[in-house]
Formats: sequence, structure tokens, C-alpha cells
Amino acid sequence: MTDAPPLPNLFADIPAPTGHEEFREILCRPGCRIERIVSQGQVTPADAPYVQDHDEWVLLLAGKAVVALADRAVVLAPGDHLMIPAGAVHRVTFTDPAAPTIWLAVHFDR
Amino acid sequence: MTDAPPLPNLFADIPAPTGHEEFREILCRPGCRIERIVSQGQVTPADAPYVQDHDEWVLLLAGKAVVALADRAVVLAPGDHLMIPAGAVHRVTFTDPAAPTIWLAVHFDR
Repeated sequence: MTDAPPLPNLFADIPAPTGHEEFREILCRPGCRIERIVSQGQVTPADAPYVQDHDEWVLLLAGKAVVALADRAVVLAPGDHLMIPAGAVHRVTFTDPAAPTIWLAVHFDR
Repeated sequence: MTDAPPLPNLFADIPAPTGHEEFREILCRPGCRIERIVSQGQVTPADAPYVQDHDEWVLLLAGKAVVALADRAVVLAPGDHLMIPAGAVHRVTFTDPAAPTIWLAVHFDR
């Protein structure tokens, strides 16, 4: 048995802040796609909310964010997780502009 | 829109240390089951390694661990992730006894 090279790390290779979030696919299997999202102050435009045709489970790994759903707004701190059902109108209304907010998103694509 | 109750958090509700790891199902979908595992110094017995009939993706959320595969040992720190293919003999040979090691495991059950 030998020592192995370092594993990939979701906290590594954080992009420099730009106007855009970074979406990186981690893995993709039938019915399940996992991605890392890095936000650095970006929010979802009020006139262009997300509405997806599949359920998405999000886990906040670092930073801070607020997600507005139709009936409530939820504040996410590291470790918090949230299921966003298919068809649910939602927007990210805050991500920390001062430090990276890192999400793990699991898309249950059908 | 109203404020919502706090979200569930993977760093919360850590069990008191016992001789056993804690496995908690977070969600289960066709072909994909997500669980949180909390280790507090436990390791896999040398004479009872894991061999699963499905791929498992693990992400270390907190703590420190070592996983021994047939051909290498990998050290996991927070953010590190590892795919353990179906059929791969593997053992957890170290988890930090001094603080909880928290894993996110995604099982691609077939």
C-alpha cells in the first residue's frame, strides 16, 4: 500500500470573484447529478427566478446565503440543507460578498 | 413572506461518543440515498472490511479520517471527496477520537 496523491477538495480551487457564480459538476449518475456552486455576492435577478423541472437538494458548505421561496425566506449557514421541490419558484437573495459561499447541489434529474 | 424556522443542519445533533458510529438517512430517492455518518474514533475492524454492491461517494464535512483501499490509503480532511466503486474492499482505519468526524455519503444503489 502506498501513499496516494491528495484527494479533490470542494474548498479548493475557488475562482477569483467575478460577476458570475461558478457551477462545477462533481459527478453525474442516472437520476442524480452533483455540483459545486461558488457564489461571491451574486444573487438571482428578481425578474428571473429559478423554476426547475426536478427536485434539487442543496447543502451549504461555507459562507452564508438567503433563499427566497414563494412562502418564506430561509437563511443558510454551513451545514444547513434544504430540498427545493420541482416547480418551486425560488431565488437566492443574498450571498456573502466578503467570502466565498460554497454550495453542494444534488439534482434529481428525471 | 415570513421568516421560517431554522433549517436542518448536518453539524447539529451530534450524538454523544459511544462505541458505534451513527448513520442517519438524510434522503432517499430511486438510485440515490444520502446519509450522514458521525464517527468518533471508530474504525472498521480489520477482519470485516466493507465491500458494497453499489458505488458510494463520500465527502468529509468535518474532522479527519483515513480510508484504506486495496492499493492505497487516503487521508480525508474537510472538503475532500472520494468515490468508492462497487466491489472495492475498503476500511476506515482512522477517525479522530477527539472530535466528531462528519461524513456525507451518497449511495448509488441500483
